[in-house]
Amino acid sequence: MRMALTSESSLLALIDQYFPNTGKNFSLARGDDCSAHESRLPIATSADLFLEDTHFRRSYFTASDTGYKALAVNLSDLAACGARPVSFVLSLGLPPDLEESWIEEFFSGMGELARTHELFLSGGDICASEKIIVAITIMGELANMPLRRGVASPGDSVFLVGKPGLARTGLVEFERSGRQRCLSDWPHAANAHLRPVPLVEAGLRLAEAAASGISIGLMDVSDGIARDLPRLLGPESGADLTLREQDLPAEVVAYAKKLGLSPLLFALEGGEDYILLGTCPAHELCSLKRLVPGLWKLGSVRATSGITCNGQIVGRGFDHFERNRQD
Amino acid sequence: MRMALTSESSLLALIDQYFPNTGKNFSLARGDDCSAHESRLPIATSADLFLEDTHFRRSYFTASDTGYKALAVNLSDLAACGARPVSFVLSLGLPPDLEESWIEEFFSGMGELARTHELFLSGGDICASEKIIVAITIMGELANMPLRRGVASPGDSVFLVGKPGLARTGLVEFERSGRQRCLSDWPHAANAHLRPVPLVEAGLRLAEAAASGISIGLMDVSDGIARDLPRLLGPESGADLTLREQDLPAEVVAYAKKLGLSPLLFALEGGEDYILLGTCPAHELCSLKRLVPGLWKLGSVRATSGITCNGQIVGRGFDHFERNRQD
Repeated sequence: MRMALTSESSLLALIDQYFPNTGKNFSLARGDDCSAHESRLPIATSADLFLEDTHFRRSYFTASDTGYKALAVNLSDLAACGARPVSFVLSLGLPPDLEESWIEEFFSGMGELARTHELFLSGGDICASEKIIVAITIMGELANMPLRRGVASPGDSVFLVGKPGLARTGLVEFERSGRQRCLSDWPHAANAHLRPVPLVEAGLRLAEAAASGISIGLMDVSDGIARDLPRLLGPESGADLTLREQDLPAEVVAYAKKLGLSPLLFALEGGEDYILLGTCPAHELCSLKRLVPGLWKLGSVRATSGITCNGQIVGRGFDHFERNRQD
Repeated sequence: MRMALTSESSLLALIDQYFPNTGKNFSLARGDDCSAHESRLPIATSADLFLEDTHFRRSYFTASDTGYKALAVNLSDLAACGARPVSFVLSLGLPPDLEESWIEEFFSGMGELARTHELFLSGGDICASEKIIVAITIMGELANMPLRRGVASPGDSVFLVGKPGLARTGLVEFERSGRQRCLSDWPHAANAHLRPVPLVEAGLRLAEAAASGISIGLMDVSDGIARDLPRLLGPESGADLTLREQDLPAEVVAYAKKLGLSPLLFALEGGEDYILLGTCPAHELCSLKRLVPGLWKLGSVRATSGITCNGQIVGRGFDHFERNRQD
């Protein structure tokens, strides 16, 4: 049935269908001015916006994809700190003429991912807006010290958990050819862009390894390795990367070549992969590989700033305000 | 100097100017994937969106007003639960052509209120959007059990902390006559709409009173008493209110009369006052009045649903999606 939203209360009833309103250690849940949560562990908090026509388009994201990805990118931030997901708050701006079926599918896609991670929706806000706005703040428990950036030393290994470039491949092809063509011709890239898998378990294992004494730096790759790696290393350090085409997903290599671009740079500059990027002492790399499936060496930290790949300097990734620059 | 945003990093540097990047009991702060906070007390969490042309217009909100109010409405939610403000996360959507001076004033207005409440900005997100989006999630510590809704019994008193109607007066006049006219002719109303004062101290005192054994229900009035009071009471109860014109701010009475409206209904249906609305046993009202400046009796709870004022039935307040209704 096609119908538009009729009231805030009908929306709240819909939320209750897809998200149970009880959370472990929550003495106050949705429906009050605040939620109240008691934890013996430190709490990791992160927030991300997910905006129509900035982060997604309704022409190639289903409502379910939209709900899934808005939450997945937040889970990825918890993964990057080694936190166990606990709860999130959801603020929604919705166009008043949006069909109720869209919203129901949105909640369904988000609710499924929330259940997978036993994540409790503790509250939020809903109001009318011209375009769809999804603002999530996520909270997780830290059984160990949080993994952080800026702990690398020269000689450390740079590693990835997961492969880069698929999400960018999906994005570029969705924008060029639309949903159906991208899904049929570049299925892995399409899926990586629509439904990135947050690497929560890998983050937890790395936090445990750090607690056992290994010096690990970690972040998730949201703006591309070229832009994010300097953030991980800090201003004093740089890295020399070694990357071969066979290290990349086949669709990334084929797609970059089709566009006449270098597959290696295409992968290093692509955002939204939500894979993990880390550093560790070189002699610990093997033990981390055994501990974390999908972890592989990308390069080595050096004592001067800048990033090279196979000896060539690598440029920047994505900046939301870069088009205003004149340099 | 007029200049547009040139990069995310220049924005982050601006934030560091207005918000110190250390918070008590925070082991990880801004600049990483998550913040990390340790508290021995339960944490109250709330979130609110503050959207251009839904909640504010740049034609009559200065940048400083915008930053102030976006945070104030979140502080009001903590007040309604009796939580002491600790930290917040700020997600911003900003038009790429927005002047840097606007953003600086925005941070200045928000930073001033944050300092007043010793509130730490622990993280967030920034990206480009067509209109300004401010999404805040706020966290506070609960030294006592959180105050909640739905605890009223028939015969309880209904009270307010603060006076209703000013924010609506300001809103209507801003929309009709613009910033200068409203500020000069209706200064209290203008100020109540632009810069509501979150009643954090009153909320803390009421939470202490509740901890001493008084059954208190509490919420903040964001959508108008007519809509919010049924939410406070729950579906089983209603209330009979007694309200005289002299109970209302003079500007509210004069403005409603100028529009040919009932001042009492105008005040009861007006949103965004961010005053506190509560219930308590009738015999405890005097002691609460002594404890909380500005607390006064609005009426009494009864065992059947519905709200009356001076014997007349009172309608609804504000609903973001109500224009879609056909009833």
